[in-house]
Amino acid sequence: MNAPPDAVVVREVGLRDGLQILARTVPTAHKIAWLRGAHAAGLREFEVVSFVPPKLMPQMADAAEVVAGALALPGAVVSVLVPNLKGAARALACQPHAMLMPVSASHAHSLANLKRTPDEAVAELAAIAAARDRHAAESGHRVKLEVGISTAFGCTLQGRVDEAEVLRLVQAALAAGADEVGLADTVGYADPEHVKRLFTAARAAFGERIAFGHFHDTRGMGVANVWAAWQTGVRCFDASLAGLGGCPHAPGASGNVATEDVAYLFASMGVPTGLNLPELLRLRGDLAQWLPGEPLHGAIARAGLPKTLQPAEVSA
Amino acid sequence: MNAPPDAVVVREVGLRDGLQILARTVPTAHKIAWLRGAHAAGLREFEVVSFVPPKLMPQMADAAEVVAGALALPGAVVSVLVPNLKGAARALACQPHAMLMPVSASHAHSLANLKRTPDEAVAELAAIAAARDRHAAESGHRVKLEVGISTAFGCTLQGRVDEAEVLRLVQAALAAGADEVGLADTVGYADPEHVKRLFTAARAAFGERIAFGHFHDTRGMGVANVWAAWQTGVRCFDASLAGLGGCPHAPGASGNVATEDVAYLFASMGVPTGLNLPELLRLRGDLAQWLPGEPLHGAIARAGLPKTLQPAEVSA
Repeated sequence: MNAPPDAVVVREVGLRDGLQILARTVPTAHKIAWLRGAHAAGLREFEVVSFVPPKLMPQMADAAEVVAGALALPGAVVSVLVPNLKGAARALACQPHAMLMPVSASHAHSLANLKRTPDEAVAELAAIAAARDRHAAESGHRVKLEVGISTAFGCTLQGRVDEAEVLRLVQAALAAGADEVGLADTVGYADPEHVKRLFTAARAAFGERIAFGHFHDTRGMGVANVWAAWQTGVRCFDASLAGLGGCPHAPGASGNVATEDVAYLFASMGVPTGLNLPELLRLRGDLAQWLPGEPLHGAIARAGLPKTLQPAEVSA
Repeated sequence: MNAPPDAVVVREVGLRDGLQILARTVPTAHKIAWLRGAHAAGLREFEVVSFVPPKLMPQMADAAEVVAGALALPGAVVSVLVPNLKGAARALACQPHAMLMPVSASHAHSLANLKRTPDEAVAELAAIAAARDRHAAESGHRVKLEVGISTAFGCTLQGRVDEAEVLRLVQAALAAGADEVGLADTVGYADPEHVKRLFTAARAAFGERIAFGHFHDTRGMGVANVWAAWQTGVRCFDASLAGLGGCPHAPGASGNVATEDVAYLFASMGVPTGLNLPELLRLRGDLAQWLPGEPLHGAIARAGLPKTLQPAEVSA
């Protein structure tokens, strides 16, 4: 127990998962300022946009500009969400480091979200992987392909989601060309024992290719679930500044687990993240100004840092 | 893993730890209504008052009445906080099931809270144990004596608290006559790895006499910390409806981990608590009416119960 613990990567997904659910459209300049502030606070991985049709989601109409802004940050690893082959083609033209395609473990959620069954989504993924390979051959730039298994812990539409079905889809996604897979609690149904059990099973079967966890804090279990997945060896977690996002069906409920709370969890445990907590909290103040009236979430911003965690210690 | 998991006891401490920090004094009738509602929701253990001088804490001036009201509930286990021998004498006259004395692991907190060093507090505990024994001999009613090691995970005044000092005080408290000891994160400084480490060490040394965990959710770690202690075998947790309490130094910060969130955590994991979540949420609504303007906390009340947790399942 004397070796320093592995570093953890916190990936800021607020610009994608947080903003896509808001009614308002955030100006590109604020998105770039958010990215710069996050970078200054030590964040290096960002999921910045979703390549959905701008007609459906005007919040993401500036996707290409935002990707370019993120790529300009030194050392940034930039990923984008692509729901289908069409979106992947637009994404590849922007040369991000990674594309993430969601595959729902819930049949009902898959139909509602992607208008495809889970197996049809995996077939689309194979087509995206082929496009990615062609693009790599032509450009010399290989874009990493990630899959997030959505609703892996339950679904607001169908209720329970079978763990065997999650593992089957992980296997299918890897066979279809995904480099890495994460398990996502899209709707905030997971509890920490469930997280521990499912990540343990998935990592036993697929090893390090089960690479990240994505947890919503809708019902207050977000931090516990991050810690649960961390105990199974996962070292990358999605999070959103101020827990931005929420759910249209649960007024007041938070969205993704808050970046600053995840940063605080790991700082408290002595796990290096490279994040500077006071800087994150300052950026949260900026966000409040950019999104007047929008409910922000997260615990550490309310209470402040404890005496045992001095600024020198939080910037590991 | 096929045997049903052990049941967990959630002890409602909001009437003591929640109310003592509020500026207002809650009428006795509301306290009794709260107790009845909590009992109807399946709660059976209650820490209901603090036997401090009414001059110092007028919120607790009706202590004897509240204890009597709690003792009238079928199957209720009623505990009271006693800061010193004088309080214990008043408490014993009310015949509760248990008395809890706090012993601070932080020297600075001990002086501020009890005007005694930790070792002087242990000496006072020995005097209380003797009084308890005399009372048992005279009345035939043996009151259980519990100790909560306050600031066991850190202190707003002194910062870090040495784990060896916590274990030394547990040993001293048991030697002085405590039946059971709990570890308390009085100020919300604990992280789940710290909780797991300290409870594991304490239970290795003192076994089941390390009987309960008391966590504040000030910095969003409350649920994770409960789960951490549960993993070490602890089966009793203090909690406060709506996370009542807070800290005068952290506006907006929550107090104890919310009873309904702890109930939800265990219900999600399939661990029986006997609690009825819809009833707890209904009682939370009553509390909001009794405490107009008071900030209430907790996540599950905002988002609502998930589809995977139907009422039939939550009343285990």
